[in-house]
This record gives sequence, C-alpha cells and structure tokens, in this order.
Amino acid sequence: MSQNKGVAVESLWPTPKIQRSGATGPLLRQERAERTREQILHCAARIFAERGYQQTGIKDVADEVAMTKGAVYFHFPNKQALAIAVVDELYSRWPVTLEAVRGKGLSPLDTVIEMFNAATVAFLEDPIMQAGTRLQNERDAVDVELPPPYVDWTNLISMLMREAHQQGQLAQHVDPDVAARVAVAAFFGAQHISDNLNGRADFAERWREVRDTLFPALRARPSLATDPDRPVTRG
Amino acid sequence: MSQNKGVAVESLWPTPKIQRSGATGPLLRQERAERTREQILHCAARIFAERGYQQTGIKDVADEVAMTKGAVYFHFPNKQALAIAVVDELYSRWPVTLEAVRGKGLSPLDTVIEMFNAATVAFLEDPIMQAGTRLQNERDAVDVELPPPYVDWTNLISMLMREAHQQGQLAQHVDPDVAARVAVAAFFGAQHISDNLNGRADFAERWREVRDTLFPALRARPSLATDPDRPVTRG
Repeated sequence: MSQNKGVAVESLWPTPKIQRSGATGPLLRQERAERTREQILHCAARIFAERGYQQTGIKDVADEVAMTKGAVYFHFPNKQALAIAVVDELYSRWPVTLEAVRGKGLSPLDTVIEMFNAATVAFLEDPIMQAGTRLQNERDAVDVELPPPYVDWTNLISMLMREAHQQGQLAQHVDPDVAARVAVAAFFGAQHISDNLNGRADFAERWREVRDTLFPALRARPSLATDPDRPVTRG
Repeated sequence: MSQNKGVAVESLWPTPKIQRSGATGPLLRQERAERTREQILHCAARIFAERGYQQTGIKDVADEVAMTKGAVYFHFPNKQALAIAVVDELYSRWPVTLEAVRGKGLSPLDTVIEMFNAATVAFLEDPIMQAGTRLQNERDAVDVELPPPYVDWTNLISMLMREAHQQGQLAQHVDPDVAARVAVAAFFGAQHISDNLNGRADFAERWREVRDTLFPALRARPSLATDPDRPVTRG
C-alpha cells in the first residue's frame, strides 16, 4: 500500500463504507443493492487504476469482486457506465472534503492548502482518485464522454481564493481567479510529472515544494500600518 | 492553423526544412533519403497529434505523404519506430532552442522565461511538439518504451536556475532545483489543463499567468545596499 508520506493532514477524504452483506443482520433490499454497487465500483476503480481502460474488462471486475458477470451487468450495463460512475464518484467527493476542511475553521487561504493536502493523500491512497485521473488521461481511448476534468476543482479553489481576497489575505496585486488557476496548474502538473516518472513516489514532496514556493507569493504581507508586532524604530 | 496568440517571442524553435525532392537539382542519394525520412516523420507527427497512437496506421502516414507503404517501411520498420522517432526528434530540439535563446544575451532567469515562451509557441504550432506530448500521454497504449518525459527539460531549467542563483538573481530563500521543478510543474500543468479543456486555445494566456505569478516570487529584490537607483531619503 502507498503511504501518506508526511503530508500533515488526517484523512479528510470520504472513506468508502464497504461492508460485506449480512455482516450486521438483515438489510433492506435497496441498501444491499447499493452496497453491492459500491463494492463493484471500488473493485473496478482498483483495476482501472492499475491497468487502464482498455486493459480492463467486465470479467476482470466480476472476478475481483467474486460475482458473476451477470451480477455486475445488473448494476452497470457496460464498461463505459463503470468508467463514468468512477469519475462521477470522484467528483462527488470534493464538496464532502470541503465540508470536512471547513470544519477546521481555517482561513480561506489555509483552506486551499488543506484541500490540496487532502487531494495529495487521495492521489497516493485512493483508487477512486487514481482511477478517475487515469481515465481522464485516457479519455480519447474511453469510448464515451466523461465529465470534463479540472473544472469543478478550479471553481472550488477560485471560490476560496475570492474569500481570501475579500478577507485581505491575498497580496494586493494578486487576482484570486488567476491565483486559483496557477495553483491548480502547479498542483496537477506536479502530480502528473511525479506519476509519469516514478508512480507518484515523490509526489508529497513535490507538492510541498509547490506549496512553499507559490503560496508565500500569493499571501499578503502583514501591513506595516496595522501589524502590532511592527518593531518601533526611530525616524 | 493555430496562432502565436501574443507570446512575445519570435520563433526560436528549429523549423523543419522540408523540401520536395528534385526542387534544387540532383541530390545525393543520402540527402534525398534524409529528406524523405523527414517528410514522413512530419506527416506522421501531424496524424499522431490529431488522432493519437492507436488510431494512426502506417497506411494513413503513407497516404498523407503520398508514398507507398513500402516506401514508409523502408525508413521506419513499424509504427513503434515512428513514435520513438517523433519523441526523439522533439527532445533533440531543446538544446538547439537553448542555443538560439542564449544568443539573445539575456540573464539566466530571463533565459528560463524565454525557453518557456518558445515551448509555448511550439505547443501551439508545431506538430512534433503536439505529437510527442500526445504520445507521452498515451504511453501505456504505445507498445514500446518511449524515452521518459520531463527529465531533459527539468535538467535544462535546473541548469539555468543554478546560473541564476550564482549570479544573485534568485531570492535568498529559493533553491534553484526546487524553483526549476515548480516552474516545470506549473508550465506543463497549465498546458495539460488547457489542452484538455479547450485544445490549448487559452494556453498562451495561461502561461502568462503562471509566469507573472511565479517568477516575481523567485527573483531577488534589488538590494537596498547596492541598488544605484535607490532613492535618497532622509533618515
């Protein structure tokens, strides 16, 4: 299993609550169906992440989840539907993660950093994130249209950067939407390069470099007029 | 055709000198063979860039270049060899571009910016760059090992950043290798996102945002002790 590699964040990423059916007594049929669907989805994500879209078949997923192909087809009519479901599942997690990070009561700019920390952990540990990203990279080979990548994420970071701007956290010359786009580009660029060169083994370190280089440049310096720690000097 | 879109740089990118055989009198057999190879390579690049590796066949390349499949096979034994040749051709251009930029006599940090400007133009206009990048993204589908991406480019930018450091151009807290990795991540991340979302239509603008956000943070401020333009003030 891959490791957190020192990114200082507890898991803010929603963990799948997979449970073998029958573990806690009788379940309603609907609940059981949902759990089965979730199990299939997570197995499919692991295989998509490892082998890519073209090398993954419904049969592989069925074998991995120890079901018949028919049982898998009951939930997902084909491989395309599985790929879309993985990407949808990935995108549905960001708002949940944002709520968890909001709960920590950080400033908007530190909320941005914590969101990237959470995404770093997800890239290193979560098959849904790994599979969703791989499917997006292979979107030309995926014979169905996937929801567009980067858009939701950029909008989310833009919203937080605008809050940071309103609260005077950004340096005066910084446009919050530009700051969001540059941060997203640097983060996903570092991830993409690390994934290509060494399977993300150094990604946590590469993200820390982006964070420590970029964010001090975005942040407002303490105002001389209002900084209570300003040393008193003679004029 | 795509446009330069306002990146302020003349083409520093080596242009292919393709010429139809027979245009300037008799050519030595060797020269003619080299030109034919170059023609095939550039046609293949255009098709790889447009359709991707799997949707490109030797037959498509032969049709595009108006030759028989046999003529293409004489130069490239198979599609894998064509893909490797495109990537090799791409990588061979950076040192040539660096020499052209060096000729402008810029400081090391401005040489870095000019190299990224040249790469931006290449992403927008040059099929070799577009095809090489697409093949790298599809490397799992390419059934032969390609030379690794990003490594040469990161080394080149690191070398320039170290020069910038030696000449006192970098802010004191900036590690030149970190600066190189972060700049490369932000540049290629912006390119990747722009390519995914709108076929690079906004890439020149996205690169300018990266440049104007990141580079001022890397650059040393003029020292108060040595800046000859320092305004004289009363203490």
